[in-house]
Amino acid sequence: MVYRVFLPAITLGLAVGYFGCPIAARAQATGASTTTKHFDRKELPQYDAFIRTLFDSSLLSGQSWPLLTALCKEVGHRLTGSEGAAKAVLLTRKQMLGMGYDSVWLQPVQVPVWKRGAPEQAKLMVTSPGMGRIKKEDQIDLAVLALGGSVATPMEGIRAEVIEVSSLEELKNLPNAQVKGKIVFINQKMDARYINTFESYSHCASIRVQGAVEAAQKGALAVLVRSLTLSIDSFPHTGMMVYRDSIPRIPAAAVSTIHADYMHVQRLLGKKIEVHLQLNCSNHPDTLSYNVVGQITGSLYPDRYLTLGGHLDSWDVGEGAHDDGAGCVHSMEAARLLMVCGYKPRHSIRTILYMNEENGMRGAREYARLARVNQESHLASIESDRGGFSPREFHVEADSQRIELLQPMLGPLMDYGIHRIRKGGSGADVAQMRDQCALLMGFVPESQRYFDYHHAHTDVLESVNRRELELGSAALATLLFLLDQE
Amino acid sequence: MVYRVFLPAITLGLAVGYFGCPIAARAQATGASTTTKHFDRKELPQYDAFIRTLFDSSLLSGQSWPLLTALCKEVGHRLTGSEGAAKAVLLTRKQMLGMGYDSVWLQPVQVPVWKRGAPEQAKLMVTSPGMGRIKKEDQIDLAVLALGGSVATPMEGIRAEVIEVSSLEELKNLPNAQVKGKIVFINQKMDARYINTFESYSHCASIRVQGAVEAAQKGALAVLVRSLTLSIDSFPHTGMMVYRDSIPRIPAAAVSTIHADYMHVQRLLGKKIEVHLQLNCSNHPDTLSYNVVGQITGSLYPDRYLTLGGHLDSWDVGEGAHDDGAGCVHSMEAARLLMVCGYKPRHSIRTILYMNEENGMRGAREYARLARVNQESHLASIESDRGGFSPREFHVEADSQRIELLQPMLGPLMDYGIHRIRKGGSGADVAQMRDQCALLMGFVPESQRYFDYHHAHTDVLESVNRRELELGSAALATLLFLLDQE
Repeated sequence: MVYRVFLPAITLGLAVGYFGCPIAARAQATGASTTTKHFDRKELPQYDAFIRTLFDSSLLSGQSWPLLTALCKEVGHRLTGSEGAAKAVLLTRKQMLGMGYDSVWLQPVQVPVWKRGAPEQAKLMVTSPGMGRIKKEDQIDLAVLALGGSVATPMEGIRAEVIEVSSLEELKNLPNAQVKGKIVFINQKMDARYINTFESYSHCASIRVQGAVEAAQKGALAVLVRSLTLSIDSFPHTGMMVYRDSIPRIPAAAVSTIHADYMHVQRLLGKKIEVHLQLNCSNHPDTLSYNVVGQITGSLYPDRYLTLGGHLDSWDVGEGAHDDGAGCVHSMEAARLLMVCGYKPRHSIRTILYMNEENGMRGAREYARLARVNQESHLASIESDRGGFSPREFHVEADSQRIELLQPMLGPLMDYGIHRIRKGGSGADVAQMRDQCALLMGFVPESQRYFDYHHAHTDVLESVNRRELELGSAALATLLFLLDQE
Repeated sequence: MVYRVFLPAITLGLAVGYFGCPIAARAQATGASTTTKHFDRKELPQYDAFIRTLFDSSLLSGQSWPLLTALCKEVGHRLTGSEGAAKAVLLTRKQMLGMGYDSVWLQPVQVPVWKRGAPEQAKLMVTSPGMGRIKKEDQIDLAVLALGGSVATPMEGIRAEVIEVSSLEELKNLPNAQVKGKIVFINQKMDARYINTFESYSHCASIRVQGAVEAAQKGALAVLVRSLTLSIDSFPHTGMMVYRDSIPRIPAAAVSTIHADYMHVQRLLGKKIEVHLQLNCSNHPDTLSYNVVGQITGSLYPDRYLTLGGHLDSWDVGEGAHDDGAGCVHSMEAARLLMVCGYKPRHSIRTILYMNEENGMRGAREYARLARVNQESHLASIESDRGGFSPREFHVEADSQRIELLQPMLGPLMDYGIHRIRKGGSGADVAQMRDQCALLMGFVPESQRYFDYHHAHTDVLESVNRRELELGSAALATLLFLLDQE
């Protein structure tokens, strides 16, 4: 292999005090031990060689796949507060203890507990106007999942006529009388035209998050939302929803896209549709859970932190393989790759597996709170929560000037499929550090398949491609390495 | 949506005579009908808008998925000369006749016929040295596929001891006496370190193509090669192999990676391994088949051609979904998108579905021969034969200067995931036009998953992601559109 020479020196302008100061001189100035391996000026051409080593190591003998296999198959799904989440804390702590971190610890955090209870039931009944009694052949079982945080229906369920709307806007404009006593079905499709599917998602997610509030305000008894996926299939996709204090709490569930289309067609045919919906979910008192944190202590600046994390909790279906088992594995494996390839970071590198991203963000808030209390200085907070697909971009929440200063990193990354570093959302967990960290970054892999699996039974190990996952781990190790040169 | 203004004018330098000449002026000079819609200078900002329209159309109402579904599920696999291939010719001709091409025709071509015959049998027998008779528990059925073009074994099969080598080089260096009378097992792994898996493939493919020649030269009775995939699984991957006239033709088959690893471990344990191999394949006289060609006749330069094609034949396992159903669909759908979006090309655009790429290249050779005989002028020959994954790059076989002139195209393509236009292999079919066309291009999608499916039972419709396929069709429509501005 031919290694390109990587020049000019990476001066990312992250640490104002050290900006532009040659690495070797800095090491001397701070009196760092000469036995610690650092790249000095003479070694700059080796940056590319070291990045090659990180990728080779990940692709030839990486642990991404075994780590994710254990999380998916030994633990499985792991909703905050569940037995699965507790197991995941123990498993990943044990995995990290075996990797050579300088320290691994649990960060206690009180988390909400929501339980799905017995499986949902939803029966759809279709009648032609004036045709009287419903025959058996006019009934089908809808594939639904209660939304996270939803209240249950009464034990006997709720049976009501369904009124369909294609957006929250349309719902808001309906007269209350048309909605009162009905089940509102919000059938808004994710817009397929966005090239990055996360944009489609963010333009449509409010139907799931706000649907119950808007429907209840009009007197609806329950709400069904079309699953947030671009795939037309039989899997409902759950996810977080909210209530508002002054507004009645009505049950809320997602329905598969195939069934959403079916209901839509029945209405186009002039049929009357009713649904009998039974949800058995329940909210419980907060309980104790943990963030899992590992640290490689920096040789030069032990009190300055580069963090990379994903969230350990998942929804309670599938195995949370892409969301966010992949992000947890990326984070652990990126640190492990740096260690196993003999790299001694200058700054402290932390792997953070956040608890409760899906329905509360309590873990990330607690991490941020402690960082504030302990007056920790964070150089960069990086998140991987967009699945285990092939690397494509890094998103940065920072001002344009700072983003410009990061562009030299593209040189070494381009050959590994990372083609852009640009302004964009970082991630829900690191966003909690917004006031304390000037550089929030998000890993952005190829997005086309993500919402086929997101929050659904399909998000299992088998939906992850081993090499794509391994490339992500190496790309993130490279990002940590490059940021650490500052 | 906001459309960026696309400036400066695209002057790709393809057509020397017209280089740098504004489009409107050219139209005037050639006296083209004013009713034909062309982009003139005032319309340049609309380039981006039109590209957006191509992508929107592909993602919202494209035919990529139905076209591929029909090819995979109504026809299935379609080895050259087989009933499947004949059906595929009829199906795609019918599909193209319904799309609005100015003409669709079949290009007759004599093709080779090779038949797999009854399924292969391979029994592996493992014995510890000095342990005598083989017990039943020491036998397993190996997952093998005869390589394309292989001769059969004698009816009763070949039973022989297996000698393992890790490369052709190692085989060449063995004394003939060690190889004579044995079955050679070439267990070279594809190198996982290449980021683009096609590089791994091209560095390893000679074990499959040349293995039988090298083994026979040393007196081997048959050859088994490790399947060319980076995945460790139970699916053998077939593909083309060759014989050399002066050297005995010995049977050749691919073995799954799981079984290759198993045999390797048995040898490490000091066991003796034998294989009883039975292949039932046969070569037959050439038969008549066809390339399928569709043409949208150019409004300004009807005698100058932009071609885009994939190959219609596949191996005789799976459904040839990625290889190369996807490329056929890309080619038809790109042309259809241009038509349905109201674009009247200036040059003639041809969709070519080549027959016999996999084991003979006869279709592409015949197309090239006729183009030469008819003195057709080809501006660009584009190929899609790397699967239906997310678009990433275009590869160009041309000199550096010409590649430089193509770079302005990246502006409009960047937002759709195409990040590079660079020197690289175009494709086996368009390479037949090398002497007659100065611009050969290949579509390069994300490569990580391709060899999980390549030439194996797993290459079925379900291994294709609908959106990824649709993005490829739109990217190729965009490439045709941009090249047509020259």
